[in-house]
Amino acid sequence: MNKNLTSYIKRHVDLTEQENERFQSTLKLKTFKKGDYLLQAGQTCTKRYYILTGCIRLFYIENGNEQIIHFGIDNWWITEYDSLINQSPSNIFIQAIEDSEVLILDQSSFERISEEIPKIEKLFRIIMEKTYIAAQRRISYMLSYSGEELYEKFVTYNPTFLQRAPQYMIASYLGMTPEFYSKIRNKPRNPTS
Amino acid sequence: MNKNLTSYIKRHVDLTEQENERFQSTLKLKTFKKGDYLLQAGQTCTKRYYILTGCIRLFYIENGNEQIIHFGIDNWWITEYDSLINQSPSNIFIQAIEDSEVLILDQSSFERISEEIPKIEKLFRIIMEKTYIAAQRRISYMLSYSGEELYEKFVTYNPTFLQRAPQYMIASYLGMTPEFYSKIRNKPRNPTS
Repeated sequence: MNKNLTSYIKRHVDLTEQENERFQSTLKLKTFKKGDYLLQAGQTCTKRYYILTGCIRLFYIENGNEQIIHFGIDNWWITEYDSLINQSPSNIFIQAIEDSEVLILDQSSFERISEEIPKIEKLFRIIMEKTYIAAQRRISYMLSYSGEELYEKFVTYNPTFLQRAPQYMIASYLGMTPEFYSKIRNKPRNPTS
Repeated sequence: MNKNLTSYIKRHVDLTEQENERFQSTLKLKTFKKGDYLLQAGQTCTKRYYILTGCIRLFYIENGNEQIIHFGIDNWWITEYDSLINQSPSNIFIQAIEDSEVLILDQSSFERISEEIPKIEKLFRIIMEKTYIAAQRRISYMLSYSGEELYEKFVTYNPTFLQRAPQYMIASYLGMTPEFYSKIRNKPRNPTS
């Protein structure tokens, strides 16, 4: 059993040790090298991923350019929900941008285990609520904030990404050109001090 | 029991008639007049709403302006998840923009009934996944599309809103000024025909 996942689960639902063991026995450990794909566009997603260590990006190609839609780091669940839930081919790539160690939950295992242990269903309802809240906040930032304010919010809420993801990927996530991002990033924050 | 809600539930989970009755018995019917608030900013949200008939908006105030973040119409579940899940004061208003008939599910009732009937937990996990997928699509449109393309996508996926919500609200939802929205809307779609 993985300790980080156990403490993650404990923050949300109250599983017995036996239930926790049973749930974690359905997961498969896999290592991805930097640059490896967890999912390619055109494939249909059938898995949810719990990142033990590493950094992973979700992106699509628009007019020949990569557009980052989401990042995940240690102790996050990620997947391509649109493809997974609607069982349709993904237009999104999932790719490791660091060497990453991941626990994989197949959708068929998920369905079996959540029937067997309803608290697993609750866990994933809560994960989805939290994931949605983050998306809703991001939409409100995109609607209300300038590029500079978007950058400030990103730094405040996701400081580790600045060290772990290349600048051009963060620029893409924030909907900026690398040049504009670089200009904002290099602007002195405290010009009078 | 409400027939529309019953058929909504049936599309996602397989409740017995008794379970469906039991679930629906926890809901309270309430009517809101056009302009009535379901939630005011500063209040902590404690409810989920199933819209039987009507049109409802979620908005916040930014620099003195209303910013629409979400709409709901007939047969949608809506709430302010950030406030509901984190039990923190909302910065969002929920307001009826038509006379609306709504079924209300208190969070305490939700917790009881989903322990009692695990398929209700599953139902709300699925609702959250679908809600998240819509938010993720919206983010990708905002990142990739011009104002005109955003409008086209909105018309394609939400045609009824054009009839039901005032233009200035749709403009706000799309992140546009009313003037820019009006310009796009009045642009001939088929100039050569």
